[in-house]
Amino acid sequence: MYDRLKGFRDFYPTEMIPRREVIDTVEDAAARYGFREVGTPALERTQMYVDKSGEGIVDELYAFTDKGGRDVALTPELTPTVARMVVAKQQALSKPIKWYSTRPFWRYEQVQQGRFREFYQTNVDIFGSSEPTADAEILAFAADALTGLGLTAEDFTFRISHRDILGGLLEAFDADVDTKAAIRAVDKSAKIETEEYHDLLVEAGLSGAQAAEFDELLETDELSDLTAFAGTDRVDAAVTNLQAVLDTAEDFGAREYCTISLETARGLDYYTGVVFECFDSTGEIGRSVFGGGRYDDLIESFGGQPTPAVGVAPGHAPLSLLLQRAGVWPEDVDTTDYYVLTVGDTQSVAAEIAQTLRARGNIVETDLSDRSFGAQMGYADSIGAETVVIVGERDLEDGNVTVKDMGSGDQTAVALDAFPGSFDRPTYTDFA
Amino acid sequence: MYDRLKGFRDFYPTEMIPRREVIDTVEDAAARYGFREVGTPALERTQMYVDKSGEGIVDELYAFTDKGGRDVALTPELTPTVARMVVAKQQALSKPIKWYSTRPFWRYEQVQQGRFREFYQTNVDIFGSSEPTADAEILAFAADALTGLGLTAEDFTFRISHRDILGGLLEAFDADVDTKAAIRAVDKSAKIETEEYHDLLVEAGLSGAQAAEFDELLETDELSDLTAFAGTDRVDAAVTNLQAVLDTAEDFGAREYCTISLETARGLDYYTGVVFECFDSTGEIGRSVFGGGRYDDLIESFGGQPTPAVGVAPGHAPLSLLLQRAGVWPEDVDTTDYYVLTVGDTQSVAAEIAQTLRARGNIVETDLSDRSFGAQMGYADSIGAETVVIVGERDLEDGNVTVKDMGSGDQTAVALDAFPGSFDRPTYTDFA
Repeated sequence: MYDRLKGFRDFYPTEMIPRREVIDTVEDAAARYGFREVGTPALERTQMYVDKSGEGIVDELYAFTDKGGRDVALTPELTPTVARMVVAKQQALSKPIKWYSTRPFWRYEQVQQGRFREFYQTNVDIFGSSEPTADAEILAFAADALTGLGLTAEDFTFRISHRDILGGLLEAFDADVDTKAAIRAVDKSAKIETEEYHDLLVEAGLSGAQAAEFDELLETDELSDLTAFAGTDRVDAAVTNLQAVLDTAEDFGAREYCTISLETARGLDYYTGVVFECFDSTGEIGRSVFGGGRYDDLIESFGGQPTPAVGVAPGHAPLSLLLQRAGVWPEDVDTTDYYVLTVGDTQSVAAEIAQTLRARGNIVETDLSDRSFGAQMGYADSIGAETVVIVGERDLEDGNVTVKDMGSGDQTAVALDAFPGSFDRPTYTDFA
Repeated sequence: MYDRLKGFRDFYPTEMIPRREVIDTVEDAAARYGFREVGTPALERTQMYVDKSGEGIVDELYAFTDKGGRDVALTPELTPTVARMVVAKQQALSKPIKWYSTRPFWRYEQVQQGRFREFYQTNVDIFGSSEPTADAEILAFAADALTGLGLTAEDFTFRISHRDILGGLLEAFDADVDTKAAIRAVDKSAKIETEEYHDLLVEAGLSGAQAAEFDELLETDELSDLTAFAGTDRVDAAVTNLQAVLDTAEDFGAREYCTISLETARGLDYYTGVVFECFDSTGEIGRSVFGGGRYDDLIESFGGQPTPAVGVAPGHAPLSLLLQRAGVWPEDVDTTDYYVLTVGDTQSVAAEIAQTLRARGNIVETDLSDRSFGAQMGYADSIGAETVVIVGERDLEDGNVTVKDMGSGDQTAVALDAFPGSFDRPTYTDFA
């Protein structure tokens, strides 16, 4: 007996039913915004991730050398791949480019609740628009996906920030600050003690007093406090942009899910503008469910024309935790329209009935194991068959089959040549 | 600029549209037979493939040692994984177990037309039935999938054989034959010269005369010739089984796609009963499009209870060649229900209209790039928008928007508070 690898999952049908419903709902929301599906490889050159994220990333990758001597890695995220694809056909693609896809990714990391080594995300990105409308559309899509799954404004919050506000505030201090290090410290701030947070800010170049002042600044609800403090065009522009994104989100009906939260920094270095993370409003799920934001420099750093970009990537494992917490995880009920039951040597007629019902779009099972009446009834029940069509030798001699409603147990004889007749989905009540 | 790995593919939206339609059609056919979707890992222990196929398989695998020291491989096929899953929950699963899934697999092999290092298959399997009905259901599903894609009996043929007929005939010769080697020779026979084929049979243990006799036997159309030659229970039983599968395929309406072809052996050692391959009837595509068959011993060899099994796995790359050859490859036309066009400062109203249309299930795009009327019209055309809703400043002053049919170019003013009104999918004609 072989074992499954740690951090990898098998999804049996009862697990797949709710997963498929969630994936379909999220993809359907994306499709309604005009995002188009793309298909992408599972393997890429390792160098692409090293260039984007530094040598350290290799420790988290399933990276190896292929039989042709290429250093390759199982894709840990989609963004570099879609950036590569945009660069490869930049001239031919009409802008804005709006893509989505759902697929697995792989990282060799510690397995914990809602975090696996093989994990699924639906990535949704817009390339080629720097307008706040694009950021707002990403937020509106994400809100539609979540409300489509049954969540409400009571259940989740998008905590929103802007990279240039953080960067601009840091710049306004009289200090030589490593901005990326300071932003990484902000990203960690919710998970660590205040003292440790301030120490990280000091390591990044602020004085102790500046670190405390910076920390306090980020807690303000008034964006005007920030522009007043910094007094720079950069912070003014960032605050204006953030406000425009929120105003447009209001037009799209998504503002109610958003809250300004400057502590939300997103750890990834490549974000450039608005960034956001989705959190469980109850706090029961202590970490970010998923996040997204603007990354205007990536395409150019991949060798393309300067191309603004913004995206979001709901991960299905943390999302399932949120849906379960909120009590809206879909049911795992198998549905089957018909079971065609054979009694005696009636397989040929049963097969014909099954095929006619299938041709009309129904889910139909029939006996594959030469089983007894009782065993077939038990199986029909186990697969949630709504209607059982009993094809018995004696009934057939009279030119009949029996149509049984599995909910009520009611049944009736129907002339073989009248079933399924003109009905696409005939049930007991059509013949009773 | 980064390059894509050789043998891997990017699917841009125009390539994904027909692919998605094909995958959906194949999966829909499976669902109508009551097959249930499963989800499976991309990585498994390499040993599983070595045990099943021998050490030689490692040369074809993307195999490596993970950071935890495990020897792992990117899955080259699904069968071992689903066998492992059946064994892991054998008691809990109600029989027959009927599973399907569509996903990529990976083999490090020579790239050629219709063959890639990353390739997609829809795997469809039944576990727990040894009845001919199960084999026939697999054939019927495959036929439904292909006819659902627009193919006809003129386009494709299922060449059907039975492992025990080949094995039983070989056994009937007065020779010490390596059956597996001989069956592999049969599997190659269509691709190599007769002389080379006979040489392989001789290497497997037949004499030259026996090789010629065996070759001739396989060309018969009369199954009774085979039972007469062998005169063994094994061949009798195999011929009876093959005939029963074909008779049941007739009941399922799939017999017309099947032809007996004893040269069809399927290279994989684990097949035990009926095997078949789908071929292009015109011969233009010279090799098998996909194949399947019965593998009754695999689950037991994986440490499970003896569990008969039968399955098929259409590969989407060779399938696309067949669909293209037959002229039924789906169109790659983008469809968009609405483009909501803004003229002047009307973004807020436009966003509200877009959201209302999306909430009713429509695919809607709107301006993300602050573009001119002409540029927006060009974009609306490029995404195949059926209807454009023009939200202009002057129109709005009169309380109107303009609804334009992109097919005819006809347009009409509609009161803002009457659009979209009670229509789920309002078009020009609803207001003209």
